[in-house]
Amino acid sequence: MKLLKERILREGTLASEGVLRVDSFINFQVDVELTDLMGREFARIFEGSGATKVLTVEASGIPAAYATAVHMGNLPLIFAKKARPSTASGDDYCAELRSFTKGNVSTIRVPRKYLSFSDRVLIIDDFLATGSASLALLELLNLAGASCVGLGAVIEKEFQGGRTKLEERGIKVSSLARIKSMREGRIEFAEED
Amino acid sequence: MKLLKERILREGTLASEGVLRVDSFINFQVDVELTDLMGREFARIFEGSGATKVLTVEASGIPAAYATAVHMGNLPLIFAKKARPSTASGDDYCAELRSFTKGNVSTIRVPRKYLSFSDRVLIIDDFLATGSASLALLELLNLAGASCVGLGAVIEKEFQGGRTKLEERGIKVSSLARIKSMREGRIEFAEED
Repeated sequence: MKLLKERILREGTLASEGVLRVDSFINFQVDVELTDLMGREFARIFEGSGATKVLTVEASGIPAAYATAVHMGNLPLIFAKKARPSTASGDDYCAELRSFTKGNVSTIRVPRKYLSFSDRVLIIDDFLATGSASLALLELLNLAGASCVGLGAVIEKEFQGGRTKLEERGIKVSSLARIKSMREGRIEFAEED
Repeated sequence: MKLLKERILREGTLASEGVLRVDSFINFQVDVELTDLMGREFARIFEGSGATKVLTVEASGIPAAYATAVHMGNLPLIFAKKARPSTASGDDYCAELRSFTKGNVSTIRVPRKYLSFSDRVLIIDDFLATGSASLALLELLNLAGASCVGLGAVIEKEFQGGRTKLEERGIKVSSLARIKSMREGRIEFAEED
């Protein structure tokens, strides 16, 4: 997605090793016009997938997932929450989210009643990096017996390997800006799919 | 907003004392069509306010705030994050959020560069109860010298007193479903403004 890539090059900043900050239009301040275009693009990519729901994890993935749900014909949008032990219950599907960058493990959850074996779910998130969040979301779907029709990431850091792990599981992965490398302060995009 | 009130009566559940759960269309699963109508309604209510930005706090407020930003002419949407000590920095405005229900204090933050004294900010959130989240968001605006043109809540629990605290500070408050009382499993709405 050309507009997005231009924006990343103009406003993205490379923080510590492998970390790209896009706070000015995705992660703190949201450009809703650009986000709407992202939603349209995901809807185009996953047209015909038969998706019945869109799933993301709080919080930064919500705007793009919302716009996608709108453009796929007002599908229900579900967002998994990061759970505190006090809030998770037996009525929830829970999965561990291993953060490779932070080195810790947290839990995400969705109430059982919002995912069932008849659901065909499209996962949308802001970043695909090591794939830890995506794998945790897939685990929630597995627990529910729901199928995953694909995973859309706004920005993919290809060099961190998430795509490979997902494709090995048969998941169709698509990202709007696929970054091949971030070295010496320079962002290089991969060839278009 | 009639559609919203009907939905609350049909699907809302009263959990513990004073707690209303609307997980099936706002807090876990989002009805994006209804949310879009909420955004249109907030845009109508705050038309002519001269808002330059929409502000919310992660995570459940994001969909309604997003829809409002879209319908107010694609305003930038900012969401404050709940901060961990490790993530807040001197580049952020921070405010304490006192949870009267949970009895704890947490911190919310927004990077300084996204709020300035020239901003006229509309705050949108999913719930207005005791006003703790709204007061914390107002504190962020005060730190930035930005003005608040109003506060819109999807659901207001009037009996928990948040509106009074905000109106005392001169804030225009508007909610789409204003609940006067929740007693003995029965929800009673206030008269329309």
